[in-house]
Amino acid sequence: MRELFLIGIGTGNPDHLTAQAAETINRAELILLPRKGPDKEDLADLRRQILAAVLTNPAVRVVEFDLPVRDAANPDYRAGVDDWHDAIALAWARAAGDGAGTVALLVWGDPSLYDSTLRIAARLPAPPRLTVVPGITAIQALAAAHAIPLNRIGAPFMITTGRRLRDEGFPPGCDTCVVMLDGECSFQSLPPEGLSIWWGAYLGMAAQILDHGPLAEAGARIIRARAAARAEHGWIMDIYLLRRDG
Amino acid sequence: MRELFLIGIGTGNPDHLTAQAAETINRAELILLPRKGPDKEDLADLRRQILAAVLTNPAVRVVEFDLPVRDAANPDYRAGVDDWHDAIALAWARAAGDGAGTVALLVWGDPSLYDSTLRIAARLPAPPRLTVVPGITAIQALAAAHAIPLNRIGAPFMITTGRRLRDEGFPPGCDTCVVMLDGECSFQSLPPEGLSIWWGAYLGMAAQILDHGPLAEAGARIIRARAAARAEHGWIMDIYLLRRDG
Ligand SMILES: C[S@@+](CC[C@H](N)C(=O)[O-])C[C@H]1O[C@@H](n2cnc3c(N)ncnc32)[C@H](O)[C@@H]1O
Ligand SMILES: C[S@@+](CC[C@H](N)C(=O)[O-])C[C@H]1O[C@@H](n2cnc3c(N)ncnc32)[C@H](O)[C@@H]1O
Repeated sequence: MRELFLIGIGTGNPDHLTAQAAETINRAELILLPRKGPDKEDLADLRRQILAAVLTNPAVRVVEFDLPVRDAANPDYRAGVDDWHDAIALAWARAAGDGAGTVALLVWGDPSLYDSTLRIAARLPAPPRLTVVPGITAIQALAAAHAIPLNRIGAPFMITTGRRLRDEGFPPGCDTCVVMLDGECSFQSLPPEGLSIWWGAYLGMAAQILDHGPLAEAGARIIRARAAARAEHGWIMDIYLLRRDG
Repeated sequence: MRELFLIGIGTGNPDHLTAQAAETINRAELILLPRKGPDKEDLADLRRQILAAVLTNPAVRVVEFDLPVRDAANPDYRAGVDDWHDAIALAWARAAGDGAGTVALLVWGDPSLYDSTLRIAARLPAPPRLTVVPGITAIQALAAAHAIPLNRIGAPFMITTGRRLRDEGFPPGCDTCVVMLDGECSFQSLPPEGLSIWWGAYLGMAAQILDHGPLAEAGARIIRARAAARAEHGWIMDIYLLRRDG
């Protein structure tokens, strides 16, 4: 593997693919497609759907591989993740074999945002040249769906995770934060007064759900809607923006 | 004007346009194209270049209009900006005339990020339905060009401006910040020890320049490169990521 293309594909809407992503897909000798297990089939499907729509070069080979599973029993979380990333790098190298000089991976959203692909690539036995193709993130899909700006005029904002919000409260030094990777509606841990929320799940997909309002009112509604949607689909991905009023 | 499409077009690389943006460009009755004055011609050119590449529907009319100039003499900055935004909304309405039900504006990067278009749209005499099409931001173009992640694993990061960095120092509660809208290399105001910088100017364009390294070494280099490039081109747009080492 001489060169690795990490191609951002957006977060559910196949029309969020850029021209550069489509072009790069057709320029790779080999595309590696992870099989993620039955519960993640909807997500693997977006990759297949995109390839069906834009892959026109018959010389490009598509190879599926099984994504290794993280050893959740490892008491050292960090070491467990390190081992897992090594195993994924090995799985890529095996699936690519010796024949492919340029290999592409389709990355959910943008490869720079809460994604391990760049770090895994650095663990390949002989690190290839990396080319990153940016993609529309869940943050932008959320802001576009609600037609809202991310920032107040000239003001900063924080991107953070559900865990951090629970552990540390509303981030200091800003009036807006976007919360990702939150399995527990962590906004519940904040005093809701003076905060508004813009929430979105399955953004860009047929199942897309949106809600927004003062956190004191919308919070309980979102918790219910999220639980119901998760029960219906078997999985959920959601993101929200919290802003101090006024 | 019944419906207004705000279409993110990326930040300089025409191949960053999404399929949705190209499709929406062809679905508007009218596209409003600002004339920005001779020094901003390079930027107006990206819009023309994109239209030349993707506008295939002959029914779509393209109307140029002069962007009003902000009254920099107004001692009340905020009131000056408000008046300016009202004047821009009026210029849109005039240029669109009565004949167009669906109007599109091409927005630099993503409409949700440090951009006034959404706020100006809210000032239209009869606010139209807004449809936002997300675009690749300068933040993503920076991360992709350097092939770096924006965040450390599970960690938050801040998006901020040059002015805030100067006035308030490195943002609290995070180890990474991305600085935009900085005409003055405001990283100079920070003690450089323990910080690294990833900088990019004219991202996605032929003139693209990148540099990175420990702030203590790269800072001076970037100040020189920025001044030289600005003198050569007559204008510059740049952005950088600062991260605490370790
Ligand atoms: C591992 S991160 C990957 C982010 C991705 N690289 C991006 O650019 O958006 C996964 C998180 O992104 C958010 N996310 C991704 N896709 C989403 C979608 N379609 N709808 C809502 N949230 C989404 C959720 O917060 C989820 O927990
Ligand atoms: C008014 S803001 C608009 C941001 C835009 N909406 C986006 O999504 O990136 C302009 C700032 O974006 C950054 N920027 C935009 N285009 C850029 C480019 N091609 N190269 C470097 N920085 C850029 C610079 O920090 C500049 O000061």
